[in-house]
Amino acid sequence: MTTTQSIDRLVRRMLELHPRKETRTVDDTLLVDCIEACLECTEVCTACADISLAEPMVTELVTSIRRCLDCSAVCRVTSEILTRQTDTALEVWQAQVKDCIAVCDACATECEKHAAHHEHHRICAETCRRCEDACKRLAQAL
Amino acid sequence: MTTTQSIDRLVRRMLELHPRKETRTVDDTLLVDCIEACLECTEVCTACADISLAEPMVTELVTSIRRCLDCSAVCRVTSEILTRQTDTALEVWQAQVKDCIAVCDACATECEKHAAHHEHHRICAETCRRCEDACKRLAQAL
Amino acid sequence: MTTTQSIDRLVRRMLELHPRKETRTVDDTLLVDCIEACLECTEVCTACADISLAEPMVTELVTSIRRCLDCSAVCRVTSEILTRQTDTALEVWQAQVKDCIAVCDACATECEKHAAHHEHHRICAETCRRCEDACKRLAQAL
Amino acid sequence: MTTTQSIDRLVRRMLELHPRKETRTVDDTLLVDCIEACLECTEVCTACADISLAEPMVTELVTSIRRCLDCSAVCRVTSEILTRQTDTALEVWQAQVKDCIAVCDACATECEKHAAHHEHHRICAETCRRCEDACKRLAQAL
Repeated sequence: MTTTQSIDRLVRRMLELHPRKETRTVDDTLLVDCIEACLECTEVCTACADISLAEPMVTELVTSIRRCLDCSAVCRVTSEILTRQTDTALEVWQAQVKDCIAVCDACATECEKHAAHHEHHRICAETCRRCEDACKRLAQAL
Repeated sequence: MTTTQSIDRLVRRMLELHPRKETRTVDDTLLVDCIEACLECTEVCTACADISLAEPMVTELVTSIRRCLDCSAVCRVTSEILTRQTDTALEVWQAQVKDCIAVCDACATECEKHAAHHEHHRICAETCRRCEDACKRLAQAL
Repeated sequence: MTTTQSIDRLVRRMLELHPRKETRTVDDTLLVDCIEACLECTEVCTACADISLAEPMVTELVTSIRRCLDCSAVCRVTSEILTRQTDTALEVWQAQVKDCIAVCDACATECEKHAAHHEHHRICAETCRRCEDACKRLAQAL
Repeated sequence: MTTTQSIDRLVRRMLELHPRKETRTVDDTLLVDCIEACLECTEVCTACADISLAEPMVTELVTSIRRCLDCSAVCRVTSEILTRQTDTALEVWQAQVKDCIAVCDACATECEKHAAHHEHHRICAETCRRCEDACKRLAQAL
């Protein structure tokens, strides 16, 4: 059985098993939080864009769909790049996390406009803000 | 704070919020399990390939790195396609899930060969098998 | 300057440079055609979904947007998996190409319905059919 | 038959067909060049990482494999985000292009170290520099 609990533990466990973990200068908890927030945001943005597409008022949600598609794609790559620990180039991590902050902010700002009418937009906006925050905390530590 | 618990709940909540959820013929729990297993497998395969790359015996792990890269990419797309609920083409879901079963099986088979020596391969093989199983259960319901 | 010509040549050149190219049992031209068709289809489906989103009649194009998003994602992964030549698992290539055929067919079938009214749907349908055909030719050779 | 020539023309044609193309403030040629360079770089980096994995001296190429995997993923998303024209957020394009410049530079810098010994590294480094340049030209126009 897949349990939600496991992604958190799995990410942390895999970080601990890395042969070069001694050379890591970033706190594991900051990394785990950020990877998880990105996975979550990828998933929620994909769902939000799809739900908006099924709404009767889809014409009013076009910008939000666009933002969610972009945000989902960027968060996915961010989680991938942060998961890799072998010979990390700090300037790559910095650029990626900075990009992710900008895209999450743009998506949250748009989804917040619809949050009062659609719970999926409210959840999406909150998830983007959480991801933006996790990225900002990590950026400060890089 | 991002908590692991949330991905499971978020996936389920977004499914419930879909305007056309009444027309869905697949059990939500099967879907949530499969989406989650795919997200988990994407993440673990990315980590396993990266850890293998840092192992001193990397030359013996080349096949496993190849399988993990492929498996990570396929699971990512499977989670994306299964998350979308608007005007689903059942033949697309079926083809995607079948593909995911084949790729997870191939990756698990390879990583199992190294499971006795590396815990990251053991965890990866188990995660792939869990994903393969979740996909099989969903495939039977489609 | 980037010239279009180069992708074709680059894909072929990289295949020729692979240290294990002698063990490859598949014809390079079939592979190059398929990888290129997948790259093309990824790109065109992303554009078609985005253009549909900007059409005044977007509500009638929701299914086509859904199909294009799925097709773009699957073609992207197919091009990635076929590009890799190291220790290929034939059953993975077969499963991936089969998946790609199904998703391209579903997308083409939907976009063909709108081809008389929108040139972007006509181009997208043709691109999906070309990719489906390239995948079928490759599948027969695997 | 898929011909390489077509990706260039297809990208340009799809841009011309966009219903809101009048509001576009960026030159089409800059956009087409950048999208194409990203598609090319995604493809070449995937191939370069895979060829390195098959080289007998793989242990010396670990950093290059890591850079290529990251670069391939970022270029893919950059091509996707630049292809979308509906309700573009300029700050998202800017952040994405900036990220792509950093990741291409890091990958080129590493692959250049191996360019004298491996033609695939030479081609990859050149492709990354071409993509970096196309992104820089676009960045100046945003």
